[in-house]
Parts: sequence; structure tokens; C-alpha cells
Amino acid sequence: MKPVCLVIGAGAGIGGSVGRKFAQEGYHAVLCRRSDGEGLEAMVAQIQNEGGDATGFLLNAAEPDVLEDRIAQVERDIGPIEVVLFNLGAQIGDRALADTSYKQFELGWRLATFALFRVAQSVLPAMVERGHGTLLVTSATAAVRGNGGQHSHAAAMGGRRMLCQSLNAEFAPKNVHVAHVLIDGAVDAPDTLGRMLGEETFEKLREARGKDKDGLLLPEKMAETYFHLAQQHRSAWTHELDLRAFSDLAWWNHR
Amino acid sequence: MKPVCLVIGAGAGIGGSVGRKFAQEGYHAVLCRRSDGEGLEAMVAQIQNEGGDATGFLLNAAEPDVLEDRIAQVERDIGPIEVVLFNLGAQIGDRALADTSYKQFELGWRLATFALFRVAQSVLPAMVERGHGTLLVTSATAAVRGNGGQHSHAAAMGGRRMLCQSLNAEFAPKNVHVAHVLIDGAVDAPDTLGRMLGEETFEKLREARGKDKDGLLLPEKMAETYFHLAQQHRSAWTHELDLRAFSDLAWWNHR
Amino acid sequence: MKPVCLVIGAGAGIGGSVGRKFAQEGYHAVLCRRSDGEGLEAMVAQIQNEGGDATGFLLNAAEPDVLEDRIAQVERDIGPIEVVLFNLGAQIGDRALADTSYKQFELGWRLATFALFRVAQSVLPAMVERGHGTLLVTSATAAVRGNGGQHSHAAAMGGRRMLCQSLNAEFAPKNVHVAHVLIDGAVDAPDTLGRMLGEETFEKLREARGKDKDGLLLPEKMAETYFHLAQQHRSAWTHELDLRAFSDLAWWNHR
Amino acid sequence: MKPVCLVIGAGAGIGGSVGRKFAQEGYHAVLCRRSDGEGLEAMVAQIQNEGGDATGFLLNAAEPDVLEDRIAQVERDIGPIEVVLFNLGAQIGDRALADTSYKQFELGWRLATFALFRVAQSVLPAMVERGHGTLLVTSATAAVRGNGGQHSHAAAMGGRRMLCQSLNAEFAPKNVHVAHVLIDGAVDAPDTLGRMLGEETFEKLREARGKDKDGLLLPEKMAETYFHLAQQHRSAWTHELDLRAFSDLAWWNHR
Repeated sequence: MKPVCLVIGAGAGIGGSVGRKFAQEGYHAVLCRRSDGEGLEAMVAQIQNEGGDATGFLLNAAEPDVLEDRIAQVERDIGPIEVVLFNLGAQIGDRALADTSYKQFELGWRLATFALFRVAQSVLPAMVERGHGTLLVTSATAAVRGNGGQHSHAAAMGGRRMLCQSLNAEFAPKNVHVAHVLIDGAVDAPDTLGRMLGEETFEKLREARGKDKDGLLLPEKMAETYFHLAQQHRSAWTHELDLRAFSDLAWWNHR
Repeated sequence: MKPVCLVIGAGAGIGGSVGRKFAQEGYHAVLCRRSDGEGLEAMVAQIQNEGGDATGFLLNAAEPDVLEDRIAQVERDIGPIEVVLFNLGAQIGDRALADTSYKQFELGWRLATFALFRVAQSVLPAMVERGHGTLLVTSATAAVRGNGGQHSHAAAMGGRRMLCQSLNAEFAPKNVHVAHVLIDGAVDAPDTLGRMLGEETFEKLREARGKDKDGLLLPEKMAETYFHLAQQHRSAWTHELDLRAFSDLAWWNHR
Repeated sequence: MKPVCLVIGAGAGIGGSVGRKFAQEGYHAVLCRRSDGEGLEAMVAQIQNEGGDATGFLLNAAEPDVLEDRIAQVERDIGPIEVVLFNLGAQIGDRALADTSYKQFELGWRLATFALFRVAQSVLPAMVERGHGTLLVTSATAAVRGNGGQHSHAAAMGGRRMLCQSLNAEFAPKNVHVAHVLIDGAVDAPDTLGRMLGEETFEKLREARGKDKDGLLLPEKMAETYFHLAQQHRSAWTHELDLRAFSDLAWWNHR
Repeated sequence: MKPVCLVIGAGAGIGGSVGRKFAQEGYHAVLCRRSDGEGLEAMVAQIQNEGGDATGFLLNAAEPDVLEDRIAQVERDIGPIEVVLFNLGAQIGDRALADTSYKQFELGWRLATFALFRVAQSVLPAMVERGHGTLLVTSATAAVRGNGGQHSHAAAMGGRRMLCQSLNAEFAPKNVHVAHVLIDGAVDAPDTLGRMLGEETFEKLREARGKDKDGLLLPEKMAETYFHLAQQHRSAWTHELDLRAFSDLAWWNHR
């Protein structure tokens, strides 16, 4: 039976590309996303056409029991989860404090912080029992510095990062690898950044960033590093790294 | 009319001591805490006996509208809030992931992160309109590094710190000073640490830390720095500082 | 006999203002700077005219033995050094890697890192023996993030900060307070920033930053916080804080 | 002609293992170390026996012109340097301030900070001209937090990290990748850790850390991540990551 790579947040950007990479490398990719069933089916079909194994589920992570039940079902019906990619975002764009509603602020926490806690509680015990496993957590610059208009996003991502560090202390000695992946730049993802900007503006941004259109973070290239993290030998684990395009200034270099 | 110093989380440790310091310096101290009405009355009486002005309220910050309504009422009935000390803690002691309930994790966020967001939304607009004001936020080591058993506390405090940094960007140019005060050691507070440890153990700890019983953070000494922050001229503001006893190792020095 | 506050780097900005503040509060200010004997004399005279005690020395910190000998002489002839302000800068402006000479890079280290090591070795043992003392270290944003053109400055300041943290571990338990003060903005200092920009540009910058000319860090206001640090009770010490004007974006808020 | 991977600090631990990995993957490994010509020859022979290309040089990085001349000679006689691993350490063990000599403190800087600056100045212009290149910098926990007895090491490594960040800003947009690799644990390296501890103690430590002797950082496993960094597509570069064994507590988890 193939080991399972479970992706929570399998959009057309990072989540889908990482799932596909793991499928190409011999994992059964279980792809979960909130909406766009058609897009999900296309993604599953693409992986299968390439000779890989994939299953897709729609799932609203903000709802109770949904993550817990799905994890239990996958373990029971598909196979032991060897790798989880937790890839839920909570970016709502820049909003002044007065324009950030209580509801948005809470939803940011539910998706970016609490959902990770729920996933960790649901999946880590089985990994500990099996003696191995990997939890890859996509994160954002907002996890290391708050910024103007980022009240909701930064609070949620800051919580996410500190939770990862707490998980490191408890689970590394039990041979479960938790890694915090800090995405420090714009990702070339049509269904998040693209939708936010509109098709035309998005295309202009891609072109402005470099003639090879690699001035945005390319998800299929990012997937190489996600996969590498999951393959690191336990004597040399990375708990935190950053990713950005060559043309992005690192967050510490802005002025 | 005296300027108001509003303390959210006015226990017998930091909160009460800072409130008293501001009262001694000419502020009307408005002390809010969740329970122990008798303790609160005693605190108010002590300040008044010293010639200061103080008012006390019981208040459960986890409940909706309570913070918002209290802030509105204080502004209306007592006076313009010049300084807020946000001093709610969310420490539940070290607990393994499996022993941290969803309810605890959520409550940690409600008190440590969301309540600060609510207070900021309620009080900062009036400060902006008046052209000045200060929000002092007590925080903890867990805001800068997660640790074993700190899943709930670290996630909540990490969110708190990133929120403060977002507030800095929006409100400093509007002349409102938000400062994040990182408490990196055990505080000599009978009704938090003392209650957690039990009277006897607490007394032993105090003695073990130094013959002058100043090897724990003494709240009345900490209050000096909180007060200093609120008096800094706007050309030289501190947005983050740490506090610890001489006998504490800084968190970065542990090994 | 008055306690001594020794200032290494007593220009017309932070160094001179902090020295004057300590003199006003009852310390004997010993002011050391590299050049401008006239400026130094004027500074000493101003403090004396205000009823304070001050002595001035010219001193090139890049030369061997000079710091060591001066500290020994002050301890012997003027009095026990209670507070040291280490205030040497090493900013050379933004320079591309190719335009940064080996000599400049080494001088940056000599002034910003090695001179602090020498001062610490020379003065801390006497403080330990006396059972108290304070070492205040002015530092810069470059100590927490490297940036374009800052190869020399950032390397030197990064070393300075890590040295301070090592000193914390060894000397705090011995009741000697070492504090790292991160200046995160432009200082209203005529003989450093002013000279670098030229008089006219400097004046324009001051005006641009706010009608009250307090949009730059005002040294005499900064001195309040330096003094506060040296007065903190040992049960509540700050090891690191930042200072910036209300109109400056914190370094983490830049984008 | 094979691309060159130049290793500055090619001992039997990280440096040698990374060089061998790159040789296995088609690079010409140029291995430079200070002493033990026999060990160096054996390392070169091993790589050649595996079918790879390698050349070895003895070199004292503390001396003037040595790094500069070697880089020029390699570019001229062996081939274009595609990857540099800067792997010089400067650990002298824990020493109290009074036991750290000026000479040691300066040597730490010469090896850990200044030598990197010299290498960067010597090799980056050619990479910029060719339009690509990678500089991998081994670093240590001491680069992010000072600690007791680490006065020299922390000052040197803190400078190293800030220099890397300055290089990021200038060279990433020019398609040259500089990555700071933070080693946060003991490395299974016989000729550094082994020599420091003595053979018997070293063997005991290896056994104590796990039955598979993988509780220390294994250099040949670390080499996988170094190689991965050099292969990252420029749209998804990592500028900083950490490495530690599963059984090590991350530095932020110590208490």
C-alpha cells in the first residue's frame, strides 16, 4: 500500500503542486479543498493520467469535526498518512483595523491556527505510534512580522508559527518531523493571487517579474523543497525555512 | 479631570501594581478583573487611601460586548482613556498536545489575542481623534518561541505579538503608542503564580531566588518601566522590550 | 564621591545627551570622543554650568590600549564606574560589496564589536567585585537584519548584539546589567547625521518630519530611556529595547 | 568542463561530505582545509575512486591573500566556480569573558566573518557576470542567540549572519543565491567534535544519542540538504534554514 500524502488546502497553487509531486514520487495524494469540485476532479485526473494515485475531497475546515472525520476516514480507507501538508491560508488583503470585522479576525484564527491544532491532534498520535511521519506547514511572512493592514492575518500566522515550535519540542524526539515553511513572496497561483488581482493584472504582474515568468514563486518548483523536507533523514531535519523568488527582496531587506 | 489609565486584567500582580503606580502619578485608575470582588475593592481602597483615584469593575473578557461596553462607559462616565494596560494572561501550565482541549485552546486565543483586538478596536479610534494615547500590552516569552507543552499559550501569545506589530504600523504615525512588554520570567504574584504553586511552594521559590526576595519579577518594580513607557516622548518610543529578574536566564540564553 | 557614568562615543547626539542627563541626576559624566576637542570642552562646560560634574577626554577607540588605559585611569582618579554607555557607531553609508574595502570592513568590526569586547573586559570585573553596575550599549537596526549596502555595518552590529547576549548570560546573575538599545530610525544629531547630509538637507529633513521637529529621534528624549534602564531594579531588568520616532516605521513594518 | 564546487573548510565532517556529494552529482570538488594533508589526500582519492573529480589544497584562511589567490587560481586553472561552500568554524568552546583573549576574539572574527567577506568579494563578481552561482554558508546557533561563554563565537557568527542578509539584498536580484545554513546541534564529525571530546567520550556520545547512531547530525545526510539548496530553482530560493537531529531540542525549545 502506498503511503498517503494528505493535503489540506489543495488549490491550484502550492497545495495541488505539492500533492502532484508526492504522487509522482509514489505517494497516494489525498487532496482536500473547500470549493471548486470541478477543479479538484481535474487535478485528481491529471495525477491519475500521469500514473499516480490521487483522491479528492471537498471540505470546509472552518466547520467542526470535518478535519477530524476526514483524517480518520483516510487512515481507515486509504492508508496510513505519512505526510500532511497543512496549506490553509487566511489572507484577506490589507485592511485597516476599523475595516477588519470580528468575524474575519476569528475566521483567520479558525483557518490558520486552530485548524492546524485540530489536524495535529488528529494525525500526530498515529504517526507517533507508527514511529514516523511528517507535518509540513505552509506559512507566510506575516508569521514573523506584523504589518500595516495585516491585523487578522499576522495574528493568525504568528499563532501558527508558535504552535509549530511547540509541536517541535514534543514530537521531534518521537520521530515526527514538523516543518514551518515561510513563503516570503507572491506565488504564481491563478486561483488565489490570480483571482484576487483579476486575470489581466495578474498576467501583467507575471510578465513584469521576469521574461521567464519566474519572478513569482512557481508552485511546481516550491514542491521540490516541500518534498525534500519530507525526505530529510532524521539526523538532519529542518524545522524552519523560507522560500522566495530571486527577484523578491527578503522581508528583512525591505526598507 | 484626571486622565484615565484602564487596566484590563488587574490582579494582585502586574495589573494592580501598574494601576496603583499610575494612580500615584495622577491618573484615575480603572481596574477590571474577572473575579474576587473583595480583592478588587481592597485594591481600590488602598489607592484611595493613598490619595489616588480608582474605580473597580468585575468583567469576564471572554464574553461578548463586555469589553466594548465597559470602554464606552468609562469614556462617557469617568473620562478620556489616556492609557490602557492590556494584561490578560492565558497560561494553563505545560500540557501535552493530547491533554490540551479544543476549549482550552480556543479560550487561550479569546483572552490573549482576540480580546486585545477587541480592546484595540474599541479604544484606539478615540485616541486617534484626541491625537494621543498609549496601549501597553503585557506579553510572555511564549510570544517569541513555542515550547514543550505550550501549544495553547504560545499560539495565543504569538498572535498577540504579531497583532501588536500590525497596530504599530497603523497607529504610530497617528501618535498612538502601542508597546509589547515581554515578561521573561516568573512574577512574584500571589494570585496567579502563588495560586498555581500553592502557598508553601511559592514561599520556598521566593526564598530560593535570593535573600532579598527579588529573584522573582517584583510587580511594583515592573510598574516603573510600564509607567516610563507611557511617558516616553513621541520622538523616542519603544515598541518592544523585555523584563526579567537579574537571576533569570534570558530565554535566548537557555541551553 | 559621585558615581561615574563613562560615555564612550560622546558626540553631540546620543552620547553627549545621555552624559548630560546622568550628570543632572548626580553622576560624574566622563565623556570620551575621538575628535573635536572644542566641542567636547563646550559639552563639559555646559554640564558644569548646570551644576553638574563632567570630565572630557579625546580617545581613538581603534588604537590599542587606549580604552583599557582610560578605564583604569578613571577608576583610579575619578571614581568607580557605575554606568558605561558604549556608543560607538560604525555606519559608513550604503556601499555595494565591491565598494566596501577590507580596511573599512575591519574598522567597522574594530569600533562596533571589538571595542565593546575590550570595554567589557576592562570594566565588568570591577563591577562584579563591587556587586553592581550597568553597561548600556547603543545599537542599530543593522544588528537584527542585514540590508543592501550594509555589509560592513550589519556584520559589525550583528556581532555587537550577539556579544551583548553572551554578556547577559555571564553577568546578569552577578548583578551587572547589560542592555542592548536598538536605535531604529534617524537621530537628530548635527555632528553625525547632520554632517553626513549637509546643513541644508539636514534642516529640510527635520522640517519634513513634523512641525514640532520631533519626527527624528531627539537625543535628549532618548536619554530619558537610557537613564531609566540604568535605574531599573534588578528584579525587573530590560536586556533589549528599541527606540524610534512615532513617524518612523518600525523595521519589521517596512515593505 | 564540470562546474566547480569550492569548499572552504573541507574537514572530515560537513565540508568533506558536501564536497563528495557534489562530486557524485557531477561537480569538480575543490577541497580546501588548513591542515592534515594526508586526510585531504585521502578525501580526494576517495572521490576519485568513486569516479568523481576532486582537487585538494591546504590553505590558512587567516592569512592575507590566500583565499583571494586560491579563488583566482581555481577559476583560471580548474573552471568556473558554480558553488562555494563556506564552512569555516570558529568555535573555541565555552570560555568566560576573562578567559577569552583578544587574540582569540579577533581570530574568531577573521575566520567566521571577515573570511566570508573576502570570499564573497572574490567570487561573487564572476558569478554575477556569468549570471548564476550559489554561496552556501554553514553557520551555528550562536548566530541567532548569544550564550554563556560564547563571547567570541557568537560575536563572529552574528556578524556572519548579518553579512549573509546584506548579500541577499544585493545579489539575489543578480541571480546569485546566498543561503545561511544554521546548524543547531552536535555534528558527528570525528576531526572537530571528536578531537574536542576525545575518542572515548565521542563514541559514548554517539551511542547515547540513539541506537542507530543518528542522534548526532550525520554529515552525509546534511549534504543532501546542502545539495538541494544549490539545485533550487530561482523562483523558489531558501535564504535561511536550520538543521538538527530529531533528538536535539531546537534552540528555541531549550528552557
